[in-house]
Amino acid sequence: MEVITEHIKVSTKGNSEVVDITEKVAALLHQQKLKEGNATIFVVGSTASITTTEFEPGLRKDIPEMFERLAPSSSRYHHDDTWGDGNGHAHIRASFLGPSIVVPFSEGKMLLGTWQQIVIIDFDTRARHRDIVIQFMGK
Amino acid sequence: MEVITEHIKVSTKGNSEVVDITEKVAALLHQQKLKEGNATIFVVGSTASITTTEFEPGLRKDIPEMFERLAPSSSRYHHDDTWGDGNGHAHIRASFLGPSIVVPFSEGKMLLGTWQQIVIIDFDTRARHRDIVIQFMGK
Amino acid sequence: MEVITEHIKVSTKGNSEVVDITEKVAALLHQQKLKEGNATIFVVGSTASITTTEFEPGLRKDIPEMFERLAPSSSRYHHDDTWGDGNGHAHIRASFLGPSIVVPFSEGKMLLGTWQQIVIIDFDTRARHRDIVIQFMGK
Repeated sequence: MEVITEHIKVSTKGNSEVVDITEKVAALLHQQKLKEGNATIFVVGSTASITTTEFEPGLRKDIPEMFERLAPSSSRYHHDDTWGDGNGHAHIRASFLGPSIVVPFSEGKMLLGTWQQIVIIDFDTRARHRDIVIQFMGK
Repeated sequence: MEVITEHIKVSTKGNSEVVDITEKVAALLHQQKLKEGNATIFVVGSTASITTTEFEPGLRKDIPEMFERLAPSSSRYHHDDTWGDGNGHAHIRASFLGPSIVVPFSEGKMLLGTWQQIVIIDFDTRARHRDIVIQFMGK
Repeated sequence: MEVITEHIKVSTKGNSEVVDITEKVAALLHQQKLKEGNATIFVVGSTASITTTEFEPGLRKDIPEMFERLAPSSSRYHHDDTWGDGNGHAHIRASFLGPSIVVPFSEGKMLLGTWQQIVIIDFDTRARHRDIVIQFMGK
C-alpha cells in the first residue's frame, strides 16, 4: 500500500465559479501507477468546496443560482461584523457543501460516471489561486 | 493492508426515493474478513447521492420534501436548455449532497449509530438501476 | 501502512451548536507518529454532522440561522408523526450536511487552511454527549 500526497493549483474567478479538475486528477493518478485505491480531493481554505457534477454550461449557471437562493450574497451575515470582508455567504456555502470528496479507482481508473466530473466551486467574492490536495491511497 | 473494490446494484424509482443499503454494505464487509479500516461508498452518476439518515417512513417523506423546497422540480433550469431532459433539479440536488461518504469500521463492524443507516437518494426523474462502488480499505 | 481508530467525546448544547474539534484531532494525530495519510472524522448518530468552517463568533451564528431557513425548527415533519420527539428538522439537516469528512495530512500535519477548522454541528433539540470516530490511515 502506498500513500502519495500531491497538490494542484487552480485559478478561479470566485463568485461561485465551477471549475472542472477531473483531467488534472486523472493525470496525477496515471503518474502514480497505482491500480486499486482511492483519491481524496480536499480544498484548503474555508470559502470553496469540492463535489461532482455534470460539467456543462447550463449547470455551471444553475449551481451558483441555487447557492444564491440558499445564502444570498446581498444578505447581512454576522461574519461580516467580525471581519468586514463581505464574504459571509461564501463561508456558509462552503461549510454547507464541504471541503472534500473521496473517489475510488480500480484498474488505474477513477470510477466516475461518463457525465460526472470532479469540480471545485469557489464561493469567495474575488479571484483566487486555490491549493487543492490530491491524496492517493492504494496499491 | 488490503483494498477491495466491490459494486452493488440498486433499483430505484427516482424522484428522490431514499433506499437503505446498510445491510448490503455490512454483508460485503463481513465477506472480506477485514477488522479495522473504512468503507468508501460512492455512487456512479450525477443525479444521485449517498448520505446517512434514520431510515423510517417519516424521514423518507421529509427528505424529498426538503429537496423540493431547495430546488423545485417545477422550476426552469439552464441544464434543461442544454439537454431538454427535464432533470436539472436532480443534478443540482446531487451536486449539493455529494456522491460519497466514508464510514469507518472496527472489530469487523461499521461504526454507525443504532438509528443511522447508509442510504442512496436517487434524484432522477425516472426509475434507475444504480451502480454503487463499495471500497474497503484496512486490515 | 497503519490504521488506527480513536474516539473523542464532545458535549454539546444541541440546537445547531458549532463546536471546534480541530485541536483534539491534531493531538490524536500527534500521538500516532504517522507522517503521511488521512483522518476520517465520522460522527455516530443521525442528528449531527461534521464539516469545516472558519471558527469565529459570527459564523457560529450564521450557520444555525442558515439551517433554520433551510429546515425550520417550527415546521411540521413526518418524522415527528413516527416518534413524536420533535426533532425532524435535526435529522433532515444532518442528512443534508453528512456524517463525515476526510482530511489529508502530510509531514505529520493536517493540511487545513489557517482559518479552516474541523467542527461538529449538533442539530438535536437538547444537550448531547457525542461520540466522534477519528480514524487515521497512513504511514
